[in-house]
Amino acid sequence: MQALVLETRLRLSLRSIDVEEPLGPGDVRIAIRSVGICGSDLHYYLHGAIGPYVVREPMILGHEASGVVVETGPQVKSLHPGDRVCMEPGVPDPGSRAARRGLYNLDRSVRFWATPPVHGCLRPTVVHPADFTFRMPANVSFAEGAMVEPLAVGVHAVTKARIRPGDVAVVLGAGPIGVVTALAALAGGCSRVFITDVHAPKLAMAARYAGVTGINIREQDPARVVAEATDGWGADVVFEASGSAEAIRGVFELLCPGGSLVYIGIPGAPVPLDVVAAQAKEARIETVFRYAHVFPRTLELISAGKIDVKPLLTDRFPFQESVAAFEFAARMPPSSVKVQIDLPAES
Amino acid sequence: MQALVLETRLRLSLRSIDVEEPLGPGDVRIAIRSVGICGSDLHYYLHGAIGPYVVREPMILGHEASGVVVETGPQVKSLHPGDRVCMEPGVPDPGSRAARRGLYNLDRSVRFWATPPVHGCLRPTVVHPADFTFRMPANVSFAEGAMVEPLAVGVHAVTKARIRPGDVAVVLGAGPIGVVTALAALAGGCSRVFITDVHAPKLAMAARYAGVTGINIREQDPARVVAEATDGWGADVVFEASGSAEAIRGVFELLCPGGSLVYIGIPGAPVPLDVVAAQAKEARIETVFRYAHVFPRTLELISAGKIDVKPLLTDRFPFQESVAAFEFAARMPPSSVKVQIDLPAES
Amino acid sequence: MQALVLETRLRLSLRSIDVEEPLGPGDVRIAIRSVGICGSDLHYYLHGAIGPYVVREPMILGHEASGVVVETGPQVKSLHPGDRVCMEPGVPDPGSRAARRGLYNLDRSVRFWATPPVHGCLRPTVVHPADFTFRMPANVSFAEGAMVEPLAVGVHAVTKARIRPGDVAVVLGAGPIGVVTALAALAGGCSRVFITDVHAPKLAMAARYAGVTGINIREQDPARVVAEATDGWGADVVFEASGSAEAIRGVFELLCPGGSLVYIGIPGAPVPLDVVAAQAKEARIETVFRYAHVFPRTLELISAGKIDVKPLLTDRFPFQESVAAFEFAARMPPSSVKVQIDLPAES
Amino acid sequence: MQALVLETRLRLSLRSIDVEEPLGPGDVRIAIRSVGICGSDLHYYLHGAIGPYVVREPMILGHEASGVVVETGPQVKSLHPGDRVCMEPGVPDPGSRAARRGLYNLDRSVRFWATPPVHGCLRPTVVHPADFTFRMPANVSFAEGAMVEPLAVGVHAVTKARIRPGDVAVVLGAGPIGVVTALAALAGGCSRVFITDVHAPKLAMAARYAGVTGINIREQDPARVVAEATDGWGADVVFEASGSAEAIRGVFELLCPGGSLVYIGIPGAPVPLDVVAAQAKEARIETVFRYAHVFPRTLELISAGKIDVKPLLTDRFPFQESVAAFEFAARMPPSSVKVQIDLPAES
Repeated sequence: MQALVLETRLRLSLRSIDVEEPLGPGDVRIAIRSVGICGSDLHYYLHGAIGPYVVREPMILGHEASGVVVETGPQVKSLHPGDRVCMEPGVPDPGSRAARRGLYNLDRSVRFWATPPVHGCLRPTVVHPADFTFRMPANVSFAEGAMVEPLAVGVHAVTKARIRPGDVAVVLGAGPIGVVTALAALAGGCSRVFITDVHAPKLAMAARYAGVTGINIREQDPARVVAEATDGWGADVVFEASGSAEAIRGVFELLCPGGSLVYIGIPGAPVPLDVVAAQAKEARIETVFRYAHVFPRTLELISAGKIDVKPLLTDRFPFQESVAAFEFAARMPPSSVKVQIDLPAES
Repeated sequence: MQALVLETRLRLSLRSIDVEEPLGPGDVRIAIRSVGICGSDLHYYLHGAIGPYVVREPMILGHEASGVVVETGPQVKSLHPGDRVCMEPGVPDPGSRAARRGLYNLDRSVRFWATPPVHGCLRPTVVHPADFTFRMPANVSFAEGAMVEPLAVGVHAVTKARIRPGDVAVVLGAGPIGVVTALAALAGGCSRVFITDVHAPKLAMAARYAGVTGINIREQDPARVVAEATDGWGADVVFEASGSAEAIRGVFELLCPGGSLVYIGIPGAPVPLDVVAAQAKEARIETVFRYAHVFPRTLELISAGKIDVKPLLTDRFPFQESVAAFEFAARMPPSSVKVQIDLPAES
Repeated sequence: MQALVLETRLRLSLRSIDVEEPLGPGDVRIAIRSVGICGSDLHYYLHGAIGPYVVREPMILGHEASGVVVETGPQVKSLHPGDRVCMEPGVPDPGSRAARRGLYNLDRSVRFWATPPVHGCLRPTVVHPADFTFRMPANVSFAEGAMVEPLAVGVHAVTKARIRPGDVAVVLGAGPIGVVTALAALAGGCSRVFITDVHAPKLAMAARYAGVTGINIREQDPARVVAEATDGWGADVVFEASGSAEAIRGVFELLCPGGSLVYIGIPGAPVPLDVVAAQAKEARIETVFRYAHVFPRTLELISAGKIDVKPLLTDRFPFQESVAAFEFAARMPPSSVKVQIDLPAES
Repeated sequence: MQALVLETRLRLSLRSIDVEEPLGPGDVRIAIRSVGICGSDLHYYLHGAIGPYVVREPMILGHEASGVVVETGPQVKSLHPGDRVCMEPGVPDPGSRAARRGLYNLDRSVRFWATPPVHGCLRPTVVHPADFTFRMPANVSFAEGAMVEPLAVGVHAVTKARIRPGDVAVVLGAGPIGVVTALAALAGGCSRVFITDVHAPKLAMAARYAGVTGINIREQDPARVVAEATDGWGADVVFEASGSAEAIRGVFELLCPGGSLVYIGIPGAPVPLDVVAAQAKEARIETVFRYAHVFPRTLELISAGKIDVKPLLTDRFPFQESVAAFEFAARMPPSSVKVQIDLPAES
């Protein structure tokens, strides 16, 4: 099949590649329709590796996807050909000790699209377990469906935070994950979300959403802004979504007594945790790894209009221009948020 | 002062009454501006008692109120004259064992407005502890502020439910408490709320809110509707807000495995709990008593536009027509939700 | 094979029966060594049915068992021939929506030993999934291992209660499940457990354990005893383990504000829930169905000496006298707690 | 009165000092009977300061105390002269925002014994709020009562950990706080506790308790020991009680997926948090500050025999030899755990 194949660092092409796709009894075959470009896809493109994951063999990129079911295995009852769907890109061993406890995202043997040596989904069809394939409500478009994967990261983080209605949140970092976390926090019960960054256009994009207030940390002290907004009490929850090692400095000044910090960002090295400052507020720190069990509820939130991802869908390319899409994404202007690639409908 | 005084069952008048109001060091004096009529006010008016609480002496009615601070005690730092505020009507003993644990609503010695023998707030001024008086954001009106008390019941119930983003909820009963609970559930993270009743106009009122679907239980089986809407899985949470002893029948059919039932309604007698049906889903049942710590977050949710109470403010009367307001409320048409009484601004 | 077969009500015999036992790739074959008689086994023996579960075909009884692994399927890595093990008697569909969330006990398609039409384990060998077979520490005997199943009910209930160290608990009912719940509550952090019953010998048996105080409800008012023991505050948690429909009357008088009630007992009809009394304390009611994920931790607690089941192992019969064991259990003296049947070691 | 007064660093004497002790309406006057020496007392003695807290005026030391009520204020109902009691050394503002939520330990305005400029309790009598004074069961000695304060730190940490029955815990550091945390973890439901240190005598002392296994990190790799003990799954919870900045290195290797780390130790500088390692297990990190609401339950656990502090009471001095007691504590042999000072009974 034709697929977007990364041979090694910077060597990306749309070319023919042999991929075996036997349909297991619990699997479905899906015609891919929209695929978003994620930071990790870009990182493999630009650097050929992420930490210990090195592209050693040609690998198809892409893991944020939606499509249409074209074939179902004999044991599949929940899906039928023609169903419009989006997919979780990570497939764990359902019999692992973690998966059996419901913590399937923590199963070390998970196979995740476009993480070497597993092929991604920038190709006409994929075979995937029905259990990780989710029917989309009729009012959710393919483009929106391909946003469920990054959005799921935010929804999972907000679930871990255990928001109470009316909580005030701070999100550190206004990149794509920061913005979807802010939207998930609002949908999940927060009354207000402050989001921090150093890039004014990113803050401006985030602040287009009602309930989101940008804080440019080059101009304002977030601790002061939050203190003023909360009568000196502090935010109920802080989401770290910048990945910056520096972001944790002073973070507990933002929090109220008994508040929580959710660590979404993935810093490149250990970060300096000010234990004494955390203890003074008995802060709870949650750490998250991808997501589990949140695709259906993320689809519900989009369908219900509680999360509107359309303003984030800033740039589209047809499948034939996939390489150009990656080149664009690699030097994306700050006014862009998400680049997606569209595959043609089957005729 | 002039006040709306209930002498005994059905004997209600706006008349002069002596009320001593010494200002303690932690108190504020408030000029009342708007007061909602609650079902309990009506019940005292029509029946002279609620269970063990009997009106034996003349008692001022009203406990859903907003106003303006006119004087502050010497220890009050958080409020100043001129502040627009709403008030929690119940004042516990802050040194009680329950209050010290943060469960002040469970303190048995609480003094609650318009619960015999404690006077309510349908009068020009009240003296109240600053700790139970909350400054309103500038964009919250006095009428909205007087809705915080009933809304707080819903917000507290939703807090107890521990909603996760995208949950599906069912509210049993589309009276005022049912409707505010539905709004709180949506604000608190639910993607969809089904609300049940037998009165079509009430359901129509509730269904004017996006995300709320009415189920007339004379016409539809709620279990079937919920099953269809959730692929047979069931709702994550059911809020019982009807007070009907019958409401609990079949309630666990509505729930998903591991779901929860929050009991807000106050049935007049023990209700038949189907333990076996609850166990089959390991249902968790939470019971709530008024609210605690939720007025500030309820104000935040109104101010942020996440809960819009304006459609519920259907009927207004000036203070001088308070008796007429109660007579209206006693035979309120189904298209009405909340009757409020306005007091004049101080000149 | 020879097995203890119930043909229909009261027709029980040790006889030969054909049972197919193919060994699946994830299964183990186990030589059974000890089997406890549970109330449900007895109920099938005496009545031929429990609710909708009717013995329509000959069925082997028994579901509380320990044994020795004699053969393993090709995919089994965690167990080896010779391993001493105990088994969870219920096997769910691991792909069910509930099981994938970690709630496998709530999967409706579970196959449970000695629940018609599924055979039990009073037979020389069984084939069972390795995932539901647990290696026993060396200091846990076969007799103790066969107690893990009933004990797991108590451990699961205590897990749901979310005990904090030093909590005071009340257990309603001093039958086998009540007693193991009391032991689990103490092991799980309670400082003291009160247990109620009408049978003095049962209470005396329970009170042999340090930390357990019996209350004969024919002689003492439990609410008064608990109030005196807690300075009027109440117990942190009540476990209902009697199954009596009457047990719920007055139960909230026993509880402290914010306390919880865990419903283990299975009453034959809906019980009268006093919602108002529950709300006055914002009681949380948890309902439990069997157990999930607790066999390993129950084994740990026995092995560590934190739960001592030996005093409960009052009566033993050899496999050849299985019918006599059931006859004994059917008219068991109050000084007996658990009857177990031993199978011979393989030679 | 005579009191143990620290003038400044190393200048400690038993001398007369004027202390005003008016008895407020909610206060009790207590004749002190036993006082333990805490690491913080020693630190003030040896260094004259702890961080920002500097001894600038003569200050009485001591905050771990028990005694006998000798006088009660007019509003005190829960205590009477002659009651044997122990006391929480920190008194918050009950009206603070944190205290009203039940988080009184997080109130910044707390006044804590022997924290400059507040006097401690190494003196014949103190006046204290009845709300922070707890009657001791008859079987709890004064020496044990004076251990409740350090033990409360462990009980609070275990409460935050949300132990489930049968959990496996690791405690980092076998100093007094590490040991009491291990005991609290066992009392709170753990089946086994591993405790790490570099000092063999400390480990030997801890390992005298059933259920505690020492790991000398100079000789063994804790991650390997824990992995072997848990079939490679990891511990459910790790308590950091060493205060060492190094302790956090590799800590997430000890944890199971979904496990938690409770930070009790107070490192002198920020510690390097390996976010990626924490995320791989979605570790939850709780931080604790002293304790709240745990004195009564700690007394229950001692009285019930679930925590035995007697082996920890290694060294006693009479009040007249208080200076010698501090000199001993300053160069305490590793076989000693807790030094206490006894005051004479009033005649």
